[in-house]
Amino acid sequence: MLSFENDYSRAAHPSVLNAVVRANEHLYSGYGSDELTAQAKAKIREACDCPDADVWFLVGGTQTNQVVIDTITPVYAGVVTVTSGHPNVHEAGAIEFSGHKVLTLPHHNGKMDANELDEFCKTFYADGNYEHMVFPGCVYVSQSTEYGTMYSKAELEALAKVAHRYDMPLFVDGARLGYALTATGSNLTLPDLARIADVFYIGGTKVGALFGEAVVFTKNNTPKHFLTQIKQHGALLAKGFVLGAQFDALFTDNLYLNIARNANVAADRIREALKAKGYQLTFEAPTNQIFVTLDQPTIDRLAQHVKLGFTEKADDTHTVMRICTSWSTTEEEVNQLIELL
Amino acid sequence: MLSFENDYSRAAHPSVLNAVVRANEHLYSGYGSDELTAQAKAKIREACDCPDADVWFLVGGTQTNQVVIDTITPVYAGVVTVTSGHPNVHEAGAIEFSGHKVLTLPHHNGKMDANELDEFCKTFYADGNYEHMVFPGCVYVSQSTEYGTMYSKAELEALAKVAHRYDMPLFVDGARLGYALTATGSNLTLPDLARIADVFYIGGTKVGALFGEAVVFTKNNTPKHFLTQIKQHGALLAKGFVLGAQFDALFTDNLYLNIARNANVAADRIREALKAKGYQLTFEAPTNQIFVTLDQPTIDRLAQHVKLGFTEKADDTHTVMRICTSWSTTEEEVNQLIELL
Amino acid sequence: MLSFENDYSRAAHPSVLNAVVRANEHLYSGYGSDELTAQAKAKIREACDCPDADVWFLVGGTQTNQVVIDTITPVYAGVVTVTSGHPNVHEAGAIEFSGHKVLTLPHHNGKMDANELDEFCKTFYADGNYEHMVFPGCVYVSQSTEYGTMYSKAELEALAKVAHRYDMPLFVDGARLGYALTATGSNLTLPDLARIADVFYIGGTKVGALFGEAVVFTKNNTPKHFLTQIKQHGALLAKGFVLGAQFDALFTDNLYLNIARNANVAADRIREALKAKGYQLTFEAPTNQIFVTLDQPTIDRLAQHVKLGFTEKADDTHTVMRICTSWSTTEEEVNQLIELL
Amino acid sequence: MLSFENDYSRAAHPSVLNAVVRANEHLYSGYGSDELTAQAKAKIREACDCPDADVWFLVGGTQTNQVVIDTITPVYAGVVTVTSGHPNVHEAGAIEFSGHKVLTLPHHNGKMDANELDEFCKTFYADGNYEHMVFPGCVYVSQSTEYGTMYSKAELEALAKVAHRYDMPLFVDGARLGYALTATGSNLTLPDLARIADVFYIGGTKVGALFGEAVVFTKNNTPKHFLTQIKQHGALLAKGFVLGAQFDALFTDNLYLNIARNANVAADRIREALKAKGYQLTFEAPTNQIFVTLDQPTIDRLAQHVKLGFTEKADDTHTVMRICTSWSTTEEEVNQLIELL
Repeated sequence: MLSFENDYSRAAHPSVLNAVVRANEHLYSGYGSDELTAQAKAKIREACDCPDADVWFLVGGTQTNQVVIDTITPVYAGVVTVTSGHPNVHEAGAIEFSGHKVLTLPHHNGKMDANELDEFCKTFYADGNYEHMVFPGCVYVSQSTEYGTMYSKAELEALAKVAHRYDMPLFVDGARLGYALTATGSNLTLPDLARIADVFYIGGTKVGALFGEAVVFTKNNTPKHFLTQIKQHGALLAKGFVLGAQFDALFTDNLYLNIARNANVAADRIREALKAKGYQLTFEAPTNQIFVTLDQPTIDRLAQHVKLGFTEKADDTHTVMRICTSWSTTEEEVNQLIELL
Repeated sequence: MLSFENDYSRAAHPSVLNAVVRANEHLYSGYGSDELTAQAKAKIREACDCPDADVWFLVGGTQTNQVVIDTITPVYAGVVTVTSGHPNVHEAGAIEFSGHKVLTLPHHNGKMDANELDEFCKTFYADGNYEHMVFPGCVYVSQSTEYGTMYSKAELEALAKVAHRYDMPLFVDGARLGYALTATGSNLTLPDLARIADVFYIGGTKVGALFGEAVVFTKNNTPKHFLTQIKQHGALLAKGFVLGAQFDALFTDNLYLNIARNANVAADRIREALKAKGYQLTFEAPTNQIFVTLDQPTIDRLAQHVKLGFTEKADDTHTVMRICTSWSTTEEEVNQLIELL
Repeated sequence: MLSFENDYSRAAHPSVLNAVVRANEHLYSGYGSDELTAQAKAKIREACDCPDADVWFLVGGTQTNQVVIDTITPVYAGVVTVTSGHPNVHEAGAIEFSGHKVLTLPHHNGKMDANELDEFCKTFYADGNYEHMVFPGCVYVSQSTEYGTMYSKAELEALAKVAHRYDMPLFVDGARLGYALTATGSNLTLPDLARIADVFYIGGTKVGALFGEAVVFTKNNTPKHFLTQIKQHGALLAKGFVLGAQFDALFTDNLYLNIARNANVAADRIREALKAKGYQLTFEAPTNQIFVTLDQPTIDRLAQHVKLGFTEKADDTHTVMRICTSWSTTEEEVNQLIELL
Repeated sequence: MLSFENDYSRAAHPSVLNAVVRANEHLYSGYGSDELTAQAKAKIREACDCPDADVWFLVGGTQTNQVVIDTITPVYAGVVTVTSGHPNVHEAGAIEFSGHKVLTLPHHNGKMDANELDEFCKTFYADGNYEHMVFPGCVYVSQSTEYGTMYSKAELEALAKVAHRYDMPLFVDGARLGYALTATGSNLTLPDLARIADVFYIGGTKVGALFGEAVVFTKNNTPKHFLTQIKQHGALLAKGFVLGAQFDALFTDNLYLNIARNANVAADRIREALKAKGYQLTFEAPTNQIFVTLDQPTIDRLAQHVKLGFTEKADDTHTVMRICTSWSTTEEEVNQLIELL
């Protein structure tokens, strides 16, 4: 059975797995105080061209969003995101569990508009009752977004500018960062992102690792006693060196971006085929997630041969389905899928 | 200076104050274990025609919403409200502070539509990923609403029916319940409400009391160890008998409804005058809150003589202002206001 | 039936009640933005000889402890208190509800020892694993304590010195502050306290008010957006002017201290009588709470005529009972009690 | 450099790593909905002789304690543990972060006494003010304990009996369960534990896995919507199959217990050598953690050749150090250590 269900179905890139296997030959200290972790952090700082960056490794995406948002947002404030943002929809209330409201703006194919953010904040502070309301305390965007779209460098700069105007850090969720950085048409680099965002993470779970997200604080702005706060959230991995080994491998010889690009190449071919065959793409998006609106007979026909992801009902007879490629998608799998379409 | 700023500017109805003064002649046990509190509870059960009702007294509205919503909503669930609902807008994140997401539906002049609630829940449970999302766990509506509108008996019954279909209690915020029950055109009574809602509260702060809200659980559904949970929220008043004395007075000789009606009579006269003078009412609403969209010169002119409440900017040159009557508004004050309009 | 059950059985001092009744003649703005509140704050600043003090009014003791401790303690830290401290024992977990651990030291008749506090912190920071532990983040003591004892000026200074050495604010719970300041042998004044403590509160509920606690931040150290944080905790009273009116009365003509002294005079007489009659005082304490260890026959005999408070079982046949005087205890009541003993 | 620092320094047992490598040959669905996870669960149910057991895989120990304690403890209640319990000392307040107080009993070489638990609960419910206090809501013990000691079957049964008397589930933290089950003198089996405890976990992180803890609910008592609650705590692993693969390997051919035994054999030899050489063991304990009180010269001498773990200062000149063996400790390493002692 073919699967384009998601980008976390394959355990890990062979080089990453090998790094873990090699790590098994030594004993390491716990909680990220080991030399493999130090080495991986150094490589990430270098890849970001940000010598002062403070890098931390966490296990998964929702966990990372919870820990970062909770620790960078004032206690009386909430996180501003678009309605389709992962913390607003698919994190089971992890943000509210930690005491913060999720404040929402409309999304535009998954993206936040800097002017709307500005307007939202302006309206907030102009409201005579704002002290009775939840302050906008940080800005969350994902790159690429939940709908596969991505921000240009200029768009991110505009968001950062507005965020800073209202004393908010800009946090970029990079669960799929590799797929955004290597998409056709992307003009954003890791150093750009490190310069623009106050904190972001480099997703490993969806780009070649068994698990793991590298959080990067770029402005000497790590929350105080961050290790303790990670532990308080139940998020501190005992064998931190397993994270270190993986990211060390991912940031050796440009592996992270190279394997990410593979997913986009595959997705570009599928998009082309879909258009050629007259399918209706739900969003125009250049990364590894393709959303396509299908009628039920087509869904039923495809379901016999390939796993796709349910996104949402479009109307009574149509459904938005997701075709998701990954770092591990092969040319052969793409060929098979195209044939089926 | 005349004031129609809000309905909590006057300390308390003289009979309520007298009851407190009289209570000063005796010593009472603490935390609501006194005889005045017992007596007030009995009178409320009777007024609700609900002998099994379990009545509790809390201090204020946001506190009551926080305590009730947190204790009736499963930990993995959120409260469903309209976007204009008080817990969503004007409680500084008190609900999220207690760990729950506020799930929002569009409002219709401040009201929730039962069909939209049904649709929301149906969509939730039809979503293949709903286990990764915040469950709808209870339904919150206010009567009267934040915009002065009110639900008919049939509308509340429809909401309760949908709520129960999805295993949710219906919670009615009655901070301004008196004004709803006595509005022109209201067909809802306290016994109706006790029959329909799973829990509601009878607002004292805005209807004659110094402070205080009477929470009524109507279906033998008080959260376990509720006194302890109130205390845990910092909401247990040491001198509970001060609450008991006030509600005892409010539910003697129908005082609560009688003084509430006064506010509606005043508001009806003001509404009539506004319409006669060509003002534009922002919402058609029958209770003690009148929302009117004014241009800046009018606002400036009125501001010299009467305090009104800011609601929100309507556009660049107009603002929605609130004219709020209360149980203590006098005919004389109404005459003065009408003259100013 | 005579009652020495607690110090919150009588509604309010007549002057305080009168102030509330007088306030009923005017309309006031909400949430403490009124002139009565401003006036009460000014009087408290003056009584504290602390012109920069920032004064806030809250409703009750547990609420105040929750709001203050949560807002002055770093998110990764806990509050240090003695085991007998109110937040550790009798607040139903309100501190943990807001996310903080209560870190405990042994008590000495209800009091914290500055050297033990120092040792606790020294041990904490010397522990190789302290980053995995809850940091000591603020120090809580009560004056007078839960056992009726009180700190001398030198003792509080010593505690403040240690607290500040470890970067912690010293918070003094003054639910019974009046009774401590006016006890025989007290050498502490309000200005002393304002100089020593970083934040403290002046208890109204137990000293003459219907309800209310005046929180005083003494070092330009009010938590950011404190009004919003109060509201977030469900603790913001709509009719703040009812709090303002009461504290305005309590801080007029030295009423607060004068009525507090009355309780101590009564307690001194009772203590003397107890000793004369051979009773065993559980603690030597100079304020309005007298703890006495009684056998069951004595308890049963007294219970027919006077309400006392249960504290704890001493052993199989003895119980620690509390005799509590208050601002409203009369000479006549004391005489009757002494006769019964 | 030799290391007996802890039992989580080695990545994973080769068979476990192989299982992960093998898993890389297939695509799996996310969040534990895969066939490897199903297979691992079945094997654990079988090993527990508990066909109804509900098994879940989480990532780490503190996370598991937080998720389980928070979801099995009523919101108005706390978890009862001994003072030395991990959640009380070394979890950075993760339990309080989720809103619960940690209620403590004295420990006896790390263990809880059933009679003291009974006394604690009896005293609680006999207290006239218990409704103002934190209810005992669940019982937490660790097997083996933080001090390497372990409960006999009878001791665990006694604890369960008391816990159930007060309507509390018994939760057994098995981060080092393998080392307890295979210690010399252990009379407890997995089926015993499944019969006695309401919920427990089988620690993988410290016994052969890269990471992972298998939570077992034994009494059809899984918290409602547990997957959602895991996600809400940020604890749901996307690639659940990586957990499944590891536990599948650990529960094939009795691997888990076999490799755990190795640590105890090594520890027994070291204990024997320590005693022979006149060292003072801090606790008599039969599992893989050996606590020994050393003077500074000895610590300094050993530190040149072997890493040990700091536990706590014993007095001004002595320190309690931990010698920790693991599933991966070799005979050669033990020989080298013994020579150094």
